[in-house]
Amino acid sequence: MTDAPWSQPHHDGSELYVPDPTPPLGGQTDVFLRVPRTGDVTSAWVRVLVDGEPELVRATVDRQDERDTWLRARLQVGNPVVSYRWLLDGGAHGYQWLNGTGLHPHDVADAADFRLSTYEPPADWATGTMYQIFPDRFAKSTDRPTPAWARAAAWNDPVIGEGPDTPRQLYGGDLDGITAHLDHLASLGVGTLYLTPFFPAESNHRYNASTFDHVDPLLGGDEAMARLAEAAHARGMHLMGDLTTNHCGDAHEWFQAALADPHSPEAGFFFFTEHPHHYDAWWGLREMPIFDHRSPELRRRLYDGPDSVVARWLGPHALGAWRIDVANMTGIHGEINLGHEVATTIRRTMAGVVKASFLQAESNHDASRDLLGDGYQGTMNYAAFTRPLWQWLLPPQPTPYTHGKYPLLPNLPGPAVVGAMRALSGVTPWQATLHAMNLIGSHDTHRIASLLGDDRLVDVAFGMLAAYPGVPMLYAGDEIGLRAMGPEYARLPMPWAHPERWHHRRLAHTRALFTTRAASVALRRGGLRWLSVTDDALTFLRESPGETILVHAARASHPPVRLPVAVVGSGVEGLAGTADLRAERSTVTLPAEGPAFGMWRLAGG
Amino acid sequence: MTDAPWSQPHHDGSELYVPDPTPPLGGQTDVFLRVPRTGDVTSAWVRVLVDGEPELVRATVDRQDERDTWLRARLQVGNPVVSYRWLLDGGAHGYQWLNGTGLHPHDVADAADFRLSTYEPPADWATGTMYQIFPDRFAKSTDRPTPAWARAAAWNDPVIGEGPDTPRQLYGGDLDGITAHLDHLASLGVGTLYLTPFFPAESNHRYNASTFDHVDPLLGGDEAMARLAEAAHARGMHLMGDLTTNHCGDAHEWFQAALADPHSPEAGFFFFTEHPHHYDAWWGLREMPIFDHRSPELRRRLYDGPDSVVARWLGPHALGAWRIDVANMTGIHGEINLGHEVATTIRRTMAGVVKASFLQAESNHDASRDLLGDGYQGTMNYAAFTRPLWQWLLPPQPTPYTHGKYPLLPNLPGPAVVGAMRALSGVTPWQATLHAMNLIGSHDTHRIASLLGDDRLVDVAFGMLAAYPGVPMLYAGDEIGLRAMGPEYARLPMPWAHPERWHHRRLAHTRALFTTRAASVALRRGGLRWLSVTDDALTFLRESPGETILVHAARASHPPVRLPVAVVGSGVEGLAGTADLRAERSTVTLPAEGPAFGMWRLAGG
Repeated sequence: MTDAPWSQPHHDGSELYVPDPTPPLGGQTDVFLRVPRTGDVTSAWVRVLVDGEPELVRATVDRQDERDTWLRARLQVGNPVVSYRWLLDGGAHGYQWLNGTGLHPHDVADAADFRLSTYEPPADWATGTMYQIFPDRFAKSTDRPTPAWARAAAWNDPVIGEGPDTPRQLYGGDLDGITAHLDHLASLGVGTLYLTPFFPAESNHRYNASTFDHVDPLLGGDEAMARLAEAAHARGMHLMGDLTTNHCGDAHEWFQAALADPHSPEAGFFFFTEHPHHYDAWWGLREMPIFDHRSPELRRRLYDGPDSVVARWLGPHALGAWRIDVANMTGIHGEINLGHEVATTIRRTMAGVVKASFLQAESNHDASRDLLGDGYQGTMNYAAFTRPLWQWLLPPQPTPYTHGKYPLLPNLPGPAVVGAMRALSGVTPWQATLHAMNLIGSHDTHRIASLLGDDRLVDVAFGMLAAYPGVPMLYAGDEIGLRAMGPEYARLPMPWAHPERWHHRRLAHTRALFTTRAASVALRRGGLRWLSVTDDALTFLRESPGETILVHAARASHPPVRLPVAVVGSGVEGLAGTADLRAERSTVTLPAEGPAFGMWRLAGG
Repeated sequence: MTDAPWSQPHHDGSELYVPDPTPPLGGQTDVFLRVPRTGDVTSAWVRVLVDGEPELVRATVDRQDERDTWLRARLQVGNPVVSYRWLLDGGAHGYQWLNGTGLHPHDVADAADFRLSTYEPPADWATGTMYQIFPDRFAKSTDRPTPAWARAAAWNDPVIGEGPDTPRQLYGGDLDGITAHLDHLASLGVGTLYLTPFFPAESNHRYNASTFDHVDPLLGGDEAMARLAEAAHARGMHLMGDLTTNHCGDAHEWFQAALADPHSPEAGFFFFTEHPHHYDAWWGLREMPIFDHRSPELRRRLYDGPDSVVARWLGPHALGAWRIDVANMTGIHGEINLGHEVATTIRRTMAGVVKASFLQAESNHDASRDLLGDGYQGTMNYAAFTRPLWQWLLPPQPTPYTHGKYPLLPNLPGPAVVGAMRALSGVTPWQATLHAMNLIGSHDTHRIASLLGDDRLVDVAFGMLAAYPGVPMLYAGDEIGLRAMGPEYARLPMPWAHPERWHHRRLAHTRALFTTRAASVALRRGGLRWLSVTDDALTFLRESPGETILVHAARASHPPVRLPVAVVGSGVEGLAGTADLRAERSTVTLPAEGPAFGMWRLAGG
């Protein structure tokens, strides 16, 4: 018996293991377990919940090949979300459970059960790489008068990263500017263009909208949006908007109506503790009054039904997806918890307007409760991807630790990092992991190039972003190596006119990674199987029917990782990284140098 | 640095750590962390969710004594259920999280967060030991005519344990029979008398009620219930009824009305797939049609409001608690999931009728989703107590395993057993663990004496039942060592007239254990801190302000367990088990013989 990850039985929600990821309610569906022949498991059962009652179903051998035995079990799809896990027998371990967090030698709770959802999945295109644009800072097509609230900046001015002028500094980027640079996005293999808010607001970030009815004229207005959508769709790209359903700006027309008249319908959209002076606001910031989702009229206007904001901006001339800002807080306030109702109502509205859409949520932590398929279809994956990756790549922090509102990022070894990834993704249905927005930087973070410093570590971060399950999000400018610490400082204008400031190797490397990903079904939709986890090196497979990709990421030079040919085969094609694999007799040896990232397509996947 | 459990930081929801277990919504409350001075943690923060957003709050030193440093953090009680966990720093481990399942060297999901609930807790008396009575088999006060469906049995007849006559065999036990034996219950330190169903039904188990309006005349009717309640209350005991909100019997008056008229209100109480011949039933058993909880009229009659069945049987002349049968399935059927609504409505109804009550749920697995304080207040604890304990005490099973509908019980070593206990109780709020119905046998299991065979192992099972957090439930007859395999065979009539069949040492031992428990605040309400877990011995503390109890359970003789005097102190008073503790210099050595159970009160707890 051996405990090496590559000899362990494996299951995830990908096509090799769950051929029909959204089976119809009331039917049956088959799930598969891969048992490496190097391992010691001899038989398996599936425990499935039907109407809240657990049942065990024995698995039978479906097929064998030279590497694996595949067991099959038939699940009853009794409820909209089917919760199941595997019970294993055999070898030195005997009684073992396999769930989303791995193997356990004892009974476990249901939180990390595998989950199958009968709800309609996201659009097929939703797995395409995202490119995040903060519209004021991406590209400018024309000069416009500066509004009273703003402080105009020339494109090459330094960013004001702190103080009262930070939200007022207006560079004047606009949507036609984006339309003019779609070639750049195409060269990166981008599938979805994610725009931070485009509604009018008295700030450059526009998270404090003053209306949801039209595109900010400073961005070119509704017509510019239609032009951008048309140009993007012509290239097969889709647009994702960014909506604050948690709050609006204090200049918002609804809030102004509420202030003017405590008996107005809009007064019921907010939490006035003493009208008009005191009201509940996001993080106590008076310029962002939060919404009271108990108001049916608010829900109707904002996200419930075909006349809502959510519905009206979807369609061929605009968006295919929404990212919901602060989704983790939306609808939750004191004794009120309408979070699930908000998510499912938005989802239902979207499904009623366009056949194929995509609903993303902002969250910085465990969002599993909202990811069962009937609401949000993915979240920003700080919890299961970004934080663990940063924790692995960042240098040790001074001790004793000084945490802020969020925990700092200690330097952790590979097993703890993968432990965190599995702990957080294990409670999330596979479809949500596959559609999670993975990121190594965003408008709310430092620039990755500055955060990590060592260019080879940045290679590893980009490599993991391309290779890990989920939807990678490139933050505009990271692909040319923009540098800055401090989230606000990092909202840099793209130096289109100054290619001498670009990190050209980074750009070429990023283009290679993400065009490879765009063309790879294994990277876009394949399962995730860990083969080896050591302090300094993480090795895993992305597997789909017909394609298998081997990924090896090292944060430092390390003792060589050796894998049995009986697990990975011997034929390989290098996809990223320069080092070849060495195959000798029964063993394949991975490159031991680091920091480095490598990716290879295996023969006969 | 050391990994011994006794040197690890500890928190649970008991009074030492959470002085106010149900703080008011909108306020603040203090939580405490115990850091043994033998350990290496130097600082701590609490991560708390407020309106769905996590925040870190730094803990400060509250006090120190010779054994421990106590850290304190103030939590914002922003929502009805407050979710929190500890972030630790210091020593070789550095970054560590502490949640309900223990210590983790990496980020974790929220499922096992500690939870504080602002909802009203169960009655104070709810922690009293329960005694389960299957009324037909406990005691008979008089002879009654045998109904047509039944087959009369004399009290000494053998039980018909299988076949069509099993549910029809009627011994004729009744409520006045119970009233006559309350001395016996008092001698066991019993606080709550749990009656399996007492409504009329065409079976001896009565889980297929034909009405919920009156007590079965075969049990003596409503008057006998009033007599029993009065006698029990006079002794400070409380009654718990057993209600099937999931289904009723096919002879039930509501189902008969539904059959007779498809347009009757009652027709909407059930799932007719083709009236009147086809309808959905529990486990497909036609005699138990399941309820459709979408019907407001059903809810009103059964559990919603003061005229409901749930409400009418509560009060001074009847019940103080309900156990809800098959709670894990109730309200869940295909695409319908009203499970949470059923639980919270029953709870609300009970709170509206009597000030202090107790709502228990039947579940055989992870019920954490229903245990947040607004619905069920405890569940039958097969998952976190019974199954792990059985898995530890039962001999190895033949391999390969042959599982049935539920997994068989392999023989597992102590670490796996405690792993299961922590995995399942860690996702459950402390108040629910404290009010979980722990059991070593019930009307649905074998007799524990037969299951374990070795009388010393039965000692261990009873000891753990008395000592582990939760509400111990004694199944009538186990205390005198009744023996039978097969749940139906095990529904034995109590041999009152044959004391020569009683296991008198078992009875004396059980009386000593549970009267000790009744008088011990640490055993009834104290926290649980593991000190040592080896394959064959489990050692833990039950701790409350002013009382600390050391518990040592061994399934076999084992290498001696040694604990530092700096952790457990040196003064002890034996409460159960015959062996003394040996204290030498800085070490206390626990008895190494087994199977054995011991319990000691520590000085200066």
